[in-house]
Amino acid sequence: MNSMSVDRSVWFPWMRRALQLASLADGFTSPNPLVGAVILDPTGKLVGEGYHLQAGKPHAEIIALQQAGDKAKSGTLIVTLEPCCHHGLTPPCTEAVINSGIKKVIVALEDPDPRVSGSGLQRLREAGLEVIDDVLKAEAAYQNRAFIHRVRTGRPWGILKWAMSLDGRIALSNGLSKWISTKESRDWVHILRAQCDAVIVGGETLRRDDPLLTSRGKCNPEPLRVVITRTLNLPLEANLWDVDVARTLVAFEADSAKSRIDKIPQGIDRLPLKSLEPISLLENLAQRKNCNRILWECGPALAAMALKQKCVQELSIVLAPKILGGSPSMSPLNEIGVTSMDKALCIESTELKSYGSDWILNMLIPPLNSDDA
Amino acid sequence: MNSMSVDRSVWFPWMRRALQLASLADGFTSPNPLVGAVILDPTGKLVGEGYHLQAGKPHAEIIALQQAGDKAKSGTLIVTLEPCCHHGLTPPCTEAVINSGIKKVIVALEDPDPRVSGSGLQRLREAGLEVIDDVLKAEAAYQNRAFIHRVRTGRPWGILKWAMSLDGRIALSNGLSKWISTKESRDWVHILRAQCDAVIVGGETLRRDDPLLTSRGKCNPEPLRVVITRTLNLPLEANLWDVDVARTLVAFEADSAKSRIDKIPQGIDRLPLKSLEPISLLENLAQRKNCNRILWECGPALAAMALKQKCVQELSIVLAPKILGGSPSMSPLNEIGVTSMDKALCIESTELKSYGSDWILNMLIPPLNSDDA
Repeated sequence: MNSMSVDRSVWFPWMRRALQLASLADGFTSPNPLVGAVILDPTGKLVGEGYHLQAGKPHAEIIALQQAGDKAKSGTLIVTLEPCCHHGLTPPCTEAVINSGIKKVIVALEDPDPRVSGSGLQRLREAGLEVIDDVLKAEAAYQNRAFIHRVRTGRPWGILKWAMSLDGRIALSNGLSKWISTKESRDWVHILRAQCDAVIVGGETLRRDDPLLTSRGKCNPEPLRVVITRTLNLPLEANLWDVDVARTLVAFEADSAKSRIDKIPQGIDRLPLKSLEPISLLENLAQRKNCNRILWECGPALAAMALKQKCVQELSIVLAPKILGGSPSMSPLNEIGVTSMDKALCIESTELKSYGSDWILNMLIPPLNSDDA
Repeated sequence: MNSMSVDRSVWFPWMRRALQLASLADGFTSPNPLVGAVILDPTGKLVGEGYHLQAGKPHAEIIALQQAGDKAKSGTLIVTLEPCCHHGLTPPCTEAVINSGIKKVIVALEDPDPRVSGSGLQRLREAGLEVIDDVLKAEAAYQNRAFIHRVRTGRPWGILKWAMSLDGRIALSNGLSKWISTKESRDWVHILRAQCDAVIVGGETLRRDDPLLTSRGKCNPEPLRVVITRTLNLPLEANLWDVDVARTLVAFEADSAKSRIDKIPQGIDRLPLKSLEPISLLENLAQRKNCNRILWECGPALAAMALKQKCVQELSIVLAPKILGGSPSMSPLNEIGVTSMDKALCIESTELKSYGSDWILNMLIPPLNSDDA
């Protein structure tokens, strides 16, 4: 069928419902995408819905089909992502859709996974089903920006978070940083962590702040806590060493740190890297730890390095109505190589919300935004 | 009369009108306060209004009385500030009010000027007029916060302004700062300057940025441009030396700078100070230059000193959606002596507006706020 002639907007309300369903599992599906599905019977009545909860568990379409049962026959499937046509941890969804007797499939986004990438839609069309694609495509791509980024680049989507005063300080000159922000915005940070697969700090943050880095129970399992340390100068006692609360991984430079490896406590994952750089760490977290999205909660040196290596796609800034003044090192970012104002990293769209007396600013980093989402 | 029994709220609408009138001269009345007045005839009909335009020109009450003429007889005067009862540059307003036949006077705020300070209201009451005071007192005090602060402390109200990136930078590490903010917010800074009697920078800002520091014609005369310089290391050519555009004053330490005084160009005001500190400069600007309100547009060292010496009562921060990263010295404020988070300068109420893609945050500095306004 000529997709130019299709009025996609009639499907927007149901696709919004499917996107809503998908979002219920935000933070839990890695390395898989978020997917939501809705099934209508031939009269247009809702007879099934579902969303993908976790890798290895049934896909959204399957849950919705099971709920609909025979009522799916000659009906319509509305799904946020192209149904898979390969055997992964679960059998291909395309076959289940075809076998159910569904006649029409409405899809938001083609699956960027090279094992699918349009061939799921092709399989459905070849089986005689009517397929309408690109319905609310931009919304669906935004919802799955982390998954898409990981599939395309081999690295998880990076969020860089900092809390700063009105004069741009992330700590006092004596190093104290607890607490710049209010309890309300710290609660919000716990929610942000729950949406991420790993939270990364540098050794300096570990030594100075002894952070807990959990979502405070807002997700289970807790995100992986990662320390990236060149010196392996690690404290004997630290909240991160309590692996009953959450898993912890220490990343270090393989060659330079051999003599100090025994400084890593028992029970902690070890990740030796050839080159101790943000980009190597993220590639490893994508491949070995199934991370779609990670959170940088680090100091200015590591944050600047992560930005320069394009390991940051999104910024979350907590702005607290306080004035601290003070010394140089306590600003959010070290040098990122901006030498003239027209080379500044300019952010076009920003979301601003108030939490208690703080504001929280969320924004996408534009260069990677236009390439990847 | 027992003021507890008075329903002041019936006068709010007219007092708001008087406050509106007063605000029309914002930035032009120094060293005088802003004052607006409204006159109603005995039936409650508006018969005159006026506001104080400039020191030496008629007071608001007089303009309103002239407009009302005979219709003021047995009428009501609504005025934002207690009428004066002394001979200043103009005769006392109390006598003009009494002679006009006005029977009732509604006042927002007692004049903090020690020459008035309640005796104007007393004079009116003694002459048999009904006086209702404290009507929208807080609004009136906020409107005249600069005047009140100057009368109470002998120093003009200080506004500290900076434009910074999302990572708290006011310039690049190579010193470039043009332009962090958008044209829209720079236009807003011109309006802010127009509301101030003087704009102050340090020698370093003069050398680095060669600023113009005018309102771009938004007020006439332009605010006084002030350079505070310890070294008197002044450029030969600078926008500030063009006194056809606006007056310029150079403040320097009297003793240490004797040999370099000839570095100050001809036509520029010279202000030798015993001690080159923000507080001495402001006392001089209040006494010699009639300043009620000044704007600090300086670098981090002078800004921190001004804050520490309580020469800043209000902050205006332009927040640009840009990331610069970089070196230490380019943050808004040097040390201000905050050594623990509970001693941070906490700001309770903040106004946030968007200008182009920038945000502008306006807020009062709380310690002085509670003491002085």
